[in-house]
Amino acid sequence: MNFCSDNATGASPEILDAVVRANEGHAMPYGADPLTRRAEDRIRELFDCDAAVFFVATGTSANALALSVMTPPYGAILCHPHAHLISAECGAVEFYTHGARLLHMDDVDGKCTPTGFDTAWSQYGPSVHDVKISAVSLTQITEAGTLYDIETVQSISDRAHENDLSVHMDGARFANAVAALNCHPADVTWKAGIDVLSFGGSKNGCLGAEAVVIFNKALAEQFAYRRKRGGHLFSKMRFVSAQIDAYITNDLWLNNARHANAMASRLAVGLHENCGVELLCQPPANMVYAAIPESAKDGLEADGFQIYRDVDGIGQFMRLVTAFNSEPAVIDSFVESVARHQ
Amino acid sequence: MNFCSDNATGASPEILDAVVRANEGHAMPYGADPLTRRAEDRIRELFDCDAAVFFVATGTSANALALSVMTPPYGAILCHPHAHLISAECGAVEFYTHGARLLHMDDVDGKCTPTGFDTAWSQYGPSVHDVKISAVSLTQITEAGTLYDIETVQSISDRAHENDLSVHMDGARFANAVAALNCHPADVTWKAGIDVLSFGGSKNGCLGAEAVVIFNKALAEQFAYRRKRGGHLFSKMRFVSAQIDAYITNDLWLNNARHANAMASRLAVGLHENCGVELLCQPPANMVYAAIPESAKDGLEADGFQIYRDVDGIGQFMRLVTAFNSEPAVIDSFVESVARHQ
Amino acid sequence: MNFCSDNATGASPEILDAVVRANEGHAMPYGADPLTRRAEDRIRELFDCDAAVFFVATGTSANALALSVMTPPYGAILCHPHAHLISAECGAVEFYTHGARLLHMDDVDGKCTPTGFDTAWSQYGPSVHDVKISAVSLTQITEAGTLYDIETVQSISDRAHENDLSVHMDGARFANAVAALNCHPADVTWKAGIDVLSFGGSKNGCLGAEAVVIFNKALAEQFAYRRKRGGHLFSKMRFVSAQIDAYITNDLWLNNARHANAMASRLAVGLHENCGVELLCQPPANMVYAAIPESAKDGLEADGFQIYRDVDGIGQFMRLVTAFNSEPAVIDSFVESVARHQ
Amino acid sequence: MNFCSDNATGASPEILDAVVRANEGHAMPYGADPLTRRAEDRIRELFDCDAAVFFVATGTSANALALSVMTPPYGAILCHPHAHLISAECGAVEFYTHGARLLHMDDVDGKCTPTGFDTAWSQYGPSVHDVKISAVSLTQITEAGTLYDIETVQSISDRAHENDLSVHMDGARFANAVAALNCHPADVTWKAGIDVLSFGGSKNGCLGAEAVVIFNKALAEQFAYRRKRGGHLFSKMRFVSAQIDAYITNDLWLNNARHANAMASRLAVGLHENCGVELLCQPPANMVYAAIPESAKDGLEADGFQIYRDVDGIGQFMRLVTAFNSEPAVIDSFVESVARHQ
Repeated sequence: MNFCSDNATGASPEILDAVVRANEGHAMPYGADPLTRRAEDRIRELFDCDAAVFFVATGTSANALALSVMTPPYGAILCHPHAHLISAECGAVEFYTHGARLLHMDDVDGKCTPTGFDTAWSQYGPSVHDVKISAVSLTQITEAGTLYDIETVQSISDRAHENDLSVHMDGARFANAVAALNCHPADVTWKAGIDVLSFGGSKNGCLGAEAVVIFNKALAEQFAYRRKRGGHLFSKMRFVSAQIDAYITNDLWLNNARHANAMASRLAVGLHENCGVELLCQPPANMVYAAIPESAKDGLEADGFQIYRDVDGIGQFMRLVTAFNSEPAVIDSFVESVARHQ
Repeated sequence: MNFCSDNATGASPEILDAVVRANEGHAMPYGADPLTRRAEDRIRELFDCDAAVFFVATGTSANALALSVMTPPYGAILCHPHAHLISAECGAVEFYTHGARLLHMDDVDGKCTPTGFDTAWSQYGPSVHDVKISAVSLTQITEAGTLYDIETVQSISDRAHENDLSVHMDGARFANAVAALNCHPADVTWKAGIDVLSFGGSKNGCLGAEAVVIFNKALAEQFAYRRKRGGHLFSKMRFVSAQIDAYITNDLWLNNARHANAMASRLAVGLHENCGVELLCQPPANMVYAAIPESAKDGLEADGFQIYRDVDGIGQFMRLVTAFNSEPAVIDSFVESVARHQ
Repeated sequence: MNFCSDNATGASPEILDAVVRANEGHAMPYGADPLTRRAEDRIRELFDCDAAVFFVATGTSANALALSVMTPPYGAILCHPHAHLISAECGAVEFYTHGARLLHMDDVDGKCTPTGFDTAWSQYGPSVHDVKISAVSLTQITEAGTLYDIETVQSISDRAHENDLSVHMDGARFANAVAALNCHPADVTWKAGIDVLSFGGSKNGCLGAEAVVIFNKALAEQFAYRRKRGGHLFSKMRFVSAQIDAYITNDLWLNNARHANAMASRLAVGLHENCGVELLCQPPANMVYAAIPESAKDGLEADGFQIYRDVDGIGQFMRLVTAFNSEPAVIDSFVESVARHQ
Repeated sequence: MNFCSDNATGASPEILDAVVRANEGHAMPYGADPLTRRAEDRIRELFDCDAAVFFVATGTSANALALSVMTPPYGAILCHPHAHLISAECGAVEFYTHGARLLHMDDVDGKCTPTGFDTAWSQYGPSVHDVKISAVSLTQITEAGTLYDIETVQSISDRAHENDLSVHMDGARFANAVAALNCHPADVTWKAGIDVLSFGGSKNGCLGAEAVVIFNKALAEQFAYRRKRGGHLFSKMRFVSAQIDAYITNDLWLNNARHANAMASRLAVGLHENCGVELLCQPPANMVYAAIPESAKDGLEADGFQIYRDVDGIGQFMRLVTAFNSEPAVIDSFVESVARHQ
């Protein structure tokens, strides 16, 4: 009964089984094994693109390594003021890029906007006295639980490319976004101008597995060295690759995300209609921001629900996150608990 | 039938079971879960020391993060010319330390010596023109498969401490060393002057799990930040902690290592006595360096054995590594294959 | 007739003479010469404090090296949103600190405030997920030409020290500040809680010379190594030291600054009273922000005055900077030009 | 009477005069002044090549910045085991390259050899487990006072380019080399395969001025940013540019070097023929390595000569360096002192 984050859940049974199966026999280390090759190939098929594909085990390493091949040390990256990159990765981007700077774009509803890009860009006068803006990073779904539509991604990417910037997507919850958009994964990535995607698995059923999908293959060699140098090339890589392989088998990634999204919707509707709780917005994916009264928070905790009372909220709105395995009954009892205690 | 490395094996069943069990229920992320706390406590008990304990998933990250809290960016680290740190981690130490330098000590039998330390130190005149020697790193067992006795570790550590250097032990195969020394793990670490240990699990039955044991707790806060910043703090940490917990339950780590060591001994005896193959030395642990003729290498490969023909050897001696699950029959058939083909 | 910046002027004759005199005879390199020792001692006398003193040749290196000994790579530095550190040094702070982050404090009149500190601090919850706030940097005089009084410096420093942060002062125009405050240089530095001062010379009569004054001597060894490693330890150091020595002889630094300040005042009065030009504020030191009409800017350029039309302004206020050798007649003719063309 | 190093001398009168003259009037800062443009153009003329040219004030910054645009952070640079880069710059190369590694090539007479390159290259197997060899650095004249002929430079450069490495020349004493080779400066640089040259001035008559000459202009933008970020872009750049301008006017750089070389030759002949002192070799340029007896060293110091007794020697050979302004009479009295005291 944990609503803090989708990383408080465990792993999908299908993925755990794949890890157990991967244990059979020997395999050459450091990714030189057939399972890794297969999982890489299947990611390329999934995205319908001859991308370079790399597996790592944490979202922070995926993001920081991705950006390390997209900006020089004297560069800067435009992103949302509350981007996970800025607020929750202890400066990993600065570490992996050797000191590039994270700069803010203005937003609406937690989403960067083409106008926000234009404003940031207009304030920038390229010269050696300032850091050189080199990349843009968008989080999909956003840290506010909102969703970029394809047109907005395209519009920001176009502006970036016109100015020789490259575009990164932090897709820690990419599956929830694709489920919500009901589009092909290519549509909101490379076809919309994304150069590098952090394709998250850890929050949606993996134990710890992320794929970095580099649509511009020229950046691949650099990435391979930087991953090893960062200590993120696993000797027994097959145990990471097995997760990704199972994750995209039979649309598990999408089905998991659809369930989580549906549970968030159920939670939002319940809180709003049954309890009159104000929402930041109707959740498109699996994150709900709800203005739950303090008394009800006390009650929820008394009833055994785990919530983040003091972190990750937006103003008076507390963040609630559903997961691939959230149970409808638990959602309903959460709503009931709020109703009872407010 | 893979003799390339102990990282070509899978995981111990006990450890895989622990991972599966860890999947039950929710757990707070990033190591704030009971299983992580328990595993940390048990490492402290194992070493009989109130150390700071951190889990990561790769040996490279363990080593590089450990050294990053032991040397300033303008520092230098004395180690063996063939230390894994130098030869096989793509500059991870330079990356995590922000540019410290790895300097060589002279060796005998693949082991750094007190005399080698003295020579290196005597050539060093501290001034701002040179990098500042700040730490020593010893690999136990060594990259040549040899074993430091307690006295040598103590003797090098004493010299280091007299000069205000701290001492790191790369214990990727620490279990094999303790099994070979038949000592308490404290005896060859903090009691012998080791300040920080990389306690390896991945090569001895874990999927991907290492413990960094910091006997000098003053370095712990730095380590915690640097681990997160490096992308090595797992959100679902319990899946790493569960491995360590199982690893040290019922002496699994030692029993695994004892088996691997025994298999290496069986291999060495077989090669030497049955085939007359020259050995670099009688293996104290789980690595054999054997001068196998080229014809026999061809034959081994034809018979389905995987070997590193071109990497990780020492001169004419090919490296052969046994693991926790090497089967005596496979060892014997390897020897037989050599006998047949040489 | 250059009003762009005080770095568009040359050097004081007294300082140039000192450089010429320093050329006599041999001297041991890298600062091991008597002139360097003397200049360091005299800085200590000037500040009435047994500080560690280091000379460098650029303001950017002074600031970045100073902060590199005050924050870890995973740290953050609170400063003004328009701090020179952020806006005009190409990420030198990120480079020298290995990736620490510059965070904003709210301001009034271009000055950080104790309240701004409190707000920034209250939004910060120390954990490994965020960068660790480690230092504060104040620019004196500020980038807006305004002046911190001693009480404000003390008040911000007190807050910083209560939270174990250290405090840096970017004193690129420190002389202008001391001249304006008419205080002892100790009063607004170490006696008011400053831990490290970048004491600027290059903008006030030196060719290229800055002193980093470290009131907390424990940081000195680190600084010495980092200066050398950054390529800022001059072999013929005496030519830098000679500048500093002359700079503080017979109060040259203060007299130069007093003149520059007086010329700025003359310029401000002239623009406001003769031309009705709106000022951002009455200038306490040597920087004037004046809302000069576009037509008058055209006229100034036609009359041969060099101005920064597009950089370094604040809103509609153009920045005008006077220097140690600005001539009253040139000031007056500038005012006259504005009057004629507006 | 200082024979420690050519950086213990002052500046050429012509250069000091140029600095004084550069003080007239205003100039736009950060190199946007006419004198800087002219000096850059004249360097291009001197080398008969449309190179990118950057001025800095120290040799360490010239070398480290040069290499920072020639190797990625996960790269390695082949150089001489005693290269100044390794032994005397406190890890500046590691700092500016963000952790690239310096690897040794075998040498003869203090010079790297084509064979040494081949050996180093043959031991290197490119993979992400090792750092990636990316560049070669040669010191001309070498740290042993010896001289690369054009053919050797060409031969090593050819090997480097065949393997996609770029080639740097540390020309701290480049003038002494050109004087000794009696060739055009292009012949031993870009025409012989050098990609980037650190063209030293500080040891040969400048106060503190070096030119980085980038024959491959594609690297120029990066260099400009990195110089600024390193704090090496001077606000009053004209005082550095004036030095370079005077340095190459009327062949001052060559005439200074020829004198220094002649004085070294006079010293070597005197020591060998008059005193029977053994020399490491007959000096081609301005560095003499001489096996002076300890008693004579005591005597030299008693007679007022400054020598490096404990640093920078090679075995029993003490290093003696002559400069652009060494006086024949002082050379002779040095020899006489040795003769008297040995």
